[in-house]
Amino acid sequence: MKSNQFVIIGLGRFGSSLARELIQLGYDVLGIDKDEEAVQDMSQELTHAVVADSTEEEVLRSLGVRNFDCAVVSIGDDIQASIMTAILLKDLGVKKVVAKAMTELHGRVLEKIGVDRVVYPERDMGIRVAHQLVSPNLLDYIELSKDYTIAELAVPKCLSGKSLQDLNPRARFGCSIVAINKPKGIIIAPTGNDVLTEKDVMVVIGTNQQIEEFEDAVIR
Amino acid sequence: MKSNQFVIIGLGRFGSSLARELIQLGYDVLGIDKDEEAVQDMSQELTHAVVADSTEEEVLRSLGVRNFDCAVVSIGDDIQASIMTAILLKDLGVKKVVAKAMTELHGRVLEKIGVDRVVYPERDMGIRVAHQLVSPNLLDYIELSKDYTIAELAVPKCLSGKSLQDLNPRARFGCSIVAINKPKGIIIAPTGNDVLTEKDVMVVIGTNQQIEEFEDAVIR
Amino acid sequence: MKSNQFVIIGLGRFGSSLARELIQLGYDVLGIDKDEEAVQDMSQELTHAVVADSTEEEVLRSLGVRNFDCAVVSIGDDIQASIMTAILLKDLGVKKVVAKAMTELHGRVLEKIGVDRVVYPERDMGIRVAHQLVSPNLLDYIELSKDYTIAELAVPKCLSGKSLQDLNPRARFGCSIVAINKPKGIIIAPTGNDVLTEKDVMVVIGTNQQIEEFEDAVIR
Amino acid sequence: MKSNQFVIIGLGRFGSSLARELIQLGYDVLGIDKDEEAVQDMSQELTHAVVADSTEEEVLRSLGVRNFDCAVVSIGDDIQASIMTAILLKDLGVKKVVAKAMTELHGRVLEKIGVDRVVYPERDMGIRVAHQLVSPNLLDYIELSKDYTIAELAVPKCLSGKSLQDLNPRARFGCSIVAINKPKGIIIAPTGNDVLTEKDVMVVIGTNQQIEEFEDAVIR
Amino acid sequence: MKSNQFVIIGLGRFGSSLARELIQLGYDVLGIDKDEEAVQDMSQELTHAVVADSTEEEVLRSLGVRNFDCAVVSIGDDIQASIMTAILLKDLGVKKVVAKAMTELHGRVLEKIGVDRVVYPERDMGIRVAHQLVSPNLLDYIELSKDYTIAELAVPKCLSGKSLQDLNPRARFGCSIVAINKPKGIIIAPTGNDVLTEKDVMVVIGTNQQIEEFEDAVIR
Amino acid sequence: MKSNQFVIIGLGRFGSSLARELIQLGYDVLGIDKDEEAVQDMSQELTHAVVADSTEEEVLRSLGVRNFDCAVVSIGDDIQASIMTAILLKDLGVKKVVAKAMTELHGRVLEKIGVDRVVYPERDMGIRVAHQLVSPNLLDYIELSKDYTIAELAVPKCLSGKSLQDLNPRARFGCSIVAINKPKGIIIAPTGNDVLTEKDVMVVIGTNQQIEEFEDAVIR
Amino acid sequence: MKSNQFVIIGLGRFGSSLARELIQLGYDVLGIDKDEEAVQDMSQELTHAVVADSTEEEVLRSLGVRNFDCAVVSIGDDIQASIMTAILLKDLGVKKVVAKAMTELHGRVLEKIGVDRVVYPERDMGIRVAHQLVSPNLLDYIELSKDYTIAELAVPKCLSGKSLQDLNPRARFGCSIVAINKPKGIIIAPTGNDVLTEKDVMVVIGTNQQIEEFEDAVIR
Amino acid sequence: MKSNQFVIIGLGRFGSSLARELIQLGYDVLGIDKDEEAVQDMSQELTHAVVADSTEEEVLRSLGVRNFDCAVVSIGDDIQASIMTAILLKDLGVKKVVAKAMTELHGRVLEKIGVDRVVYPERDMGIRVAHQLVSPNLLDYIELSKDYTIAELAVPKCLSGKSLQDLNPRARFGCSIVAINKPKGIIIAPTGNDVLTEKDVMVVIGTNQQIEEFEDAVIR
Repeated sequence: MKSNQFVIIGLGRFGSSLARELIQLGYDVLGIDKDEEAVQDMSQELTHAVVADSTEEEVLRSLGVRNFDCAVVSIGDDIQASIMTAILLKDLGVKKVVAKAMTELHGRVLEKIGVDRVVYPERDMGIRVAHQLVSPNLLDYIELSKDYTIAELAVPKCLSGKSLQDLNPRARFGCSIVAINKPKGIIIAPTGNDVLTEKDVMVVIGTNQQIEEFEDAVIR
Repeated sequence: MKSNQFVIIGLGRFGSSLARELIQLGYDVLGIDKDEEAVQDMSQELTHAVVADSTEEEVLRSLGVRNFDCAVVSIGDDIQASIMTAILLKDLGVKKVVAKAMTELHGRVLEKIGVDRVVYPERDMGIRVAHQLVSPNLLDYIELSKDYTIAELAVPKCLSGKSLQDLNPRARFGCSIVAINKPKGIIIAPTGNDVLTEKDVMVVIGTNQQIEEFEDAVIR
Repeated sequence: MKSNQFVIIGLGRFGSSLARELIQLGYDVLGIDKDEEAVQDMSQELTHAVVADSTEEEVLRSLGVRNFDCAVVSIGDDIQASIMTAILLKDLGVKKVVAKAMTELHGRVLEKIGVDRVVYPERDMGIRVAHQLVSPNLLDYIELSKDYTIAELAVPKCLSGKSLQDLNPRARFGCSIVAINKPKGIIIAPTGNDVLTEKDVMVVIGTNQQIEEFEDAVIR
Repeated sequence: MKSNQFVIIGLGRFGSSLARELIQLGYDVLGIDKDEEAVQDMSQELTHAVVADSTEEEVLRSLGVRNFDCAVVSIGDDIQASIMTAILLKDLGVKKVVAKAMTELHGRVLEKIGVDRVVYPERDMGIRVAHQLVSPNLLDYIELSKDYTIAELAVPKCLSGKSLQDLNPRARFGCSIVAINKPKGIIIAPTGNDVLTEKDVMVVIGTNQQIEEFEDAVIR
Repeated sequence: MKSNQFVIIGLGRFGSSLARELIQLGYDVLGIDKDEEAVQDMSQELTHAVVADSTEEEVLRSLGVRNFDCAVVSIGDDIQASIMTAILLKDLGVKKVVAKAMTELHGRVLEKIGVDRVVYPERDMGIRVAHQLVSPNLLDYIELSKDYTIAELAVPKCLSGKSLQDLNPRARFGCSIVAINKPKGIIIAPTGNDVLTEKDVMVVIGTNQQIEEFEDAVIR
Repeated sequence: MKSNQFVIIGLGRFGSSLARELIQLGYDVLGIDKDEEAVQDMSQELTHAVVADSTEEEVLRSLGVRNFDCAVVSIGDDIQASIMTAILLKDLGVKKVVAKAMTELHGRVLEKIGVDRVVYPERDMGIRVAHQLVSPNLLDYIELSKDYTIAELAVPKCLSGKSLQDLNPRARFGCSIVAINKPKGIIIAPTGNDVLTEKDVMVVIGTNQQIEEFEDAVIR
Repeated sequence: MKSNQFVIIGLGRFGSSLARELIQLGYDVLGIDKDEEAVQDMSQELTHAVVADSTEEEVLRSLGVRNFDCAVVSIGDDIQASIMTAILLKDLGVKKVVAKAMTELHGRVLEKIGVDRVVYPERDMGIRVAHQLVSPNLLDYIELSKDYTIAELAVPKCLSGKSLQDLNPRARFGCSIVAINKPKGIIIAPTGNDVLTEKDVMVVIGTNQQIEEFEDAVIR
Repeated sequence: MKSNQFVIIGLGRFGSSLARELIQLGYDVLGIDKDEEAVQDMSQELTHAVVADSTEEEVLRSLGVRNFDCAVVSIGDDIQASIMTAILLKDLGVKKVVAKAMTELHGRVLEKIGVDRVVYPERDMGIRVAHQLVSPNLLDYIELSKDYTIAELAVPKCLSGKSLQDLNPRARFGCSIVAINKPKGIIIAPTGNDVLTEKDVMVVIGTNQQIEEFEDAVIR
């Protein structure tokens, strides 16, 4: 049984999406925003949602914020409110405080005042979308290290009907296909006989350069 | 040799991050924003950066926007400007127009007027961060389908020194470890003899439930 | 018996005039505006008038907007609200959506998102008033085609007492007088014996050039 | 040869449309607006366009406004500026001053201070669009008197192939078809043998009731 | 018994002073202002004081404004509201409408729409104070015509103890002393034997030049 | 020869009227306002007119304000600026400082900081207009004391042709007619034989009650 | 027993600190501010705290302000309100009125209108902090006269273990150590045998130059 | 010779006073403010004064801020700018950073990000003025510890002519007079024979209670 509870302060686009997903993952979420409309929009989806000024210590105290496992400061544009809220949460003894930073400088302040994790949603999504734009078949990816990436690549028409043996990425480019997601199910650790069709999705591991060369040679 | 060119309209946090990454990936980027300060901040990093009102057809025409391979409308909060810019770009004949949507309704309009791809950075990052918050060892992940996920998991202290044979996730939970990222290099398709240490990162494929059970049993 | 019903969203000068006329023509009209004062001013004249934000799907749904035969989006200056309202109306299944466009670009967006008819009241009235300014006797007109016009012309003093035979516009200019509106009644398809007096109004059909020459020769 | 000259004060949607149409009809137009952008947008289309405050007598005098045949005050929303401009124009001796009124009360003031003609574009267009909404085949119309109207009606599919003799509107409803606009030309005063096809447009004269009955019986 | 009633619209510095004085002179005054604070400040001094928007016909009608003998429009800075209020008052049939004008152009509009009397308090007080500044002994004055003035002059120390015979202004300068206001009472039509003392005030009639010469010679 | 010089700080309606009148009376006037437009409007009428912030000591010093005979602070609505300017003027050694007060409290502060004369133009004009409204024949008046007034009264139609003997105001009401202003000249100290005509103006001295009774009995 | 009562008008940073300290010193304090939030923040700490506009005489009168021993005008940035409040307090008969001045000119006005003491908190603190910045061991000081100062100096490490005889400041620099504050108690008028340790604080009297030389020689 | 240099960021009332005093103490001061007027007002008094946005790293770097011995962040009301500036200064390597805090929470953040000293000018001055208000003879004071204070007390009339022996504060109250500031010079460590006169100032050391009792008994 899950007992974790989250308090999300700031119910803008990022905060409300985060709160909604946590609810769907089965957690309790208390949402706080100083804007009445933002709270009203989320009130039916969250465990609790209250209109409150998170920069006042008394307010946070009376909401019992210290008892939550994790607090997320997802305040939109008011850097001062973000900082003040974060320091109050740490001072109140919240174990894990995560905060969204607007700029790198903002992020530095958050770290200095003891925030456990600083996230930069817009910056990170900018990077992610950039990669997807330049590789049209790239659906998603994980950067394992500075060099290695796992890429989720759509199988293009030109590869339809080909077996992994035909492609042989390991030998030709150095990267490996570790899974094929087919409409009827996933094949993990596929063999050379497995055949690709257009609706399939390949999961490829390799260095950035290997994957890029693989894409350039067989996909585009 | 790469010949692709991108025009990014709106140099806020998302747009500037996207533009910067494209530059680093080796592409030409023209950045446009109506705010002089935003343009100045990016002017040294981008191929070109101009202050311009993207809702005026003449302006876009004179900037030669039609000749770009892909245009991204990453305007921050002005939904009207976002829509007007997007329709002008399509009317001017730009092949691929990507636009950032503030709300779902905004996204629906963008699709109706012909935008090729609509992105929701804040919503998507909210979801991504939610998953990372609930699984503290989860570093990143790819949703392959509604059921299957590739998860990048930090190896916790308690697993240090154990071999994959010891863990045997395939037999016990149904999920597979397809790679281990060790400080000295990546092991793709590891065998039962490979041993985990605390700084390692495992790449696991399986259904959401399998991975969750694996985490609950051996990691937490 | 008439059963048509109209919903008018935006009760500014154009919208309230439209709503008022529909009521006088015997139709039911639901008026919606987010401005309380605008609604109050119309509340006694319309079937129903409510203060509501038409850019929220729930609001439109709860007002039963989908059951109306025709919806008119006559929002004054807020282009974003106009577009959002229009797409919601189409998505809700309203059969006929008419929308007022502020600019040509706005009109293009409205058409793309499926609006059935886009009107440009200020532009159209500008054109209409221009014609009346340049022909002082022109009371009103219909453009039948690029060439042909029906013009309603006041009979000036200098023509008082003259018969159609005297004027003979058909022979001299090519245009025809198809009706004469006299204080005591209308003469349709008048003959050469019908005599004009100062208070009469002639209805003339012909090409623009014919009518202009007729005016220049006999009226001015 | 035309020698008339117009000065249009206020280059908003109505004023700029009016100015543009006068130019196309072959007249000289001086456009005045206190907003620089509005003037710039029109500067290439008009004879002259200047940025000026029309509520200052000296300004109007130095622009030689008194020498124009007709001045139109089409100021958008600033009622005070509209009134001040209008009284200055009359005091300067402009022969014909036309002014746009925002409200009926505004119109009353304009008349009292000597404006020659007051127009209400939004109100008039509201009425015109109302009529077109309730008769889907009505393309345009002229109100000849309180009772009589000339209506321009699209010929619907159901009437295609029928002759005027078949319809016989004069005998059955009292109204007359005075012209048929066919793709290949206009038939003025058509006879019973003339046959309608779907792309045709009929011009009908009659009382409002006659035309309505005609539409209800044969068209809808 | 006095039966006159006044309605004062606009309770700024001028309007409230006017209203207060009318009350002290024994008249009934209804004060109207759209600003709640202004109304509250006057509510105990006036017969009635209401918060209302005087530019709405219904409001004025419901307040029974038509039954007042005289209405004063003393609206501070909103020229549009001043004009709209004034025309409504005339249209409602108020017999005498007095209005305060901010500028000469404003005054011209007020006269054109039928205001019975236009006052310019700041302009008039500017002129009055100018005269008092240049003649330090001038307490007040009435301009009888372009040439003649009645001046109320303080008797300076240097004239103390002198009889009118000594001064003999009539013979020497052409102007007459028609009254002397002494602490113990007024002497009307004083004789040559009447003696001035320092606290007295003389009332002098003459041309502007005569009075100026009198002042220069005997007073300064 | 006149050598007086005035500096007027604040060129609003009151200040500009005061400045203009002083110029016409033959004095030099330096006008100061922080609003550029106000200065420009007066620049051709005054000896000098400068845009300056009068609350800065250095500014006043550099303009040589200390050398003027008299300074008038006629600042419109900014009470703080009015006070600061006045104290600076006194500290700089200007002999006579006159200031306009917005409220009584403002006036009290001005007196405390050493202003030589405080004027209340709007309040005084309110009182003056009140008197004119209640006595329709009253053109102007001087309050000699709490009881005595000089009134300038228009001669109404009903008194036309009557001699002063007929009226005999001294005997009947206690007040005296000290002058009659006739179109062809003024009669000072008129006799009983002098006859009034409709265009004449009487100058009457008496107590307020005497004049009121006189008006009620013979004029109204 | 203390009977003094204070009214503090303006509960900003300075005013609220002042009010709080007076409460702690055992006095009654009435706090007044026109900002509701400021009042609410202090309401539990002060004897009374009310939201009121201190520039209205009636308000101050109804709060019984005249009965207080001392009133402090600590209004933040609104110079006009500060002046108006101060003059009203004096006029109401408050014996001692202290007021905070924003600028020197503001201070001059406050003195002219009778304020008993004008304080410049920011200016004074600026001076005080300047002295502390330049002498790192200076904890606090009192300026006895233009030349003489009492300085509270931290004993630095280098002096630890030295006796006053060793230092002999009187003989060497002319200044005297009149007290040593040691963790276990204060030594007043210490003798040559008293020994300094690092946590001690010396109180030194002398001319500014003597103390500076003492610091330079033995401390730094 | 002094070589210290200060940079003062924020030239409001506190910052400009601090900067001015440092200059008078013989130090170099660079003043920075983003408000042009504030900079201009100080430009002649400081070593350098520049208009700059201190929240931009590049700006601070280009001004060579890292080379200063001490930086003071005296930004008025913008808490965010204060924090951002302070963290940049620390990151740039400025040895000593002093910052003014608006609230206690603000102060906590400043300490967390590494500010060396946080000052609360308004709070401290509030406390200081409170003490002076409650002891009318208290001119200034130093709090040596929670209990001990040095007080600078004006000698009141009632003590004039008395010797220290007469007062004998040590024996009667426990506190000591360590200095007497007389018009002709300071007496340090005065003896029992020294006589007080009205213009003198005593410096008293003792516990708060001792000094209070001394004041109550002999002074008030």
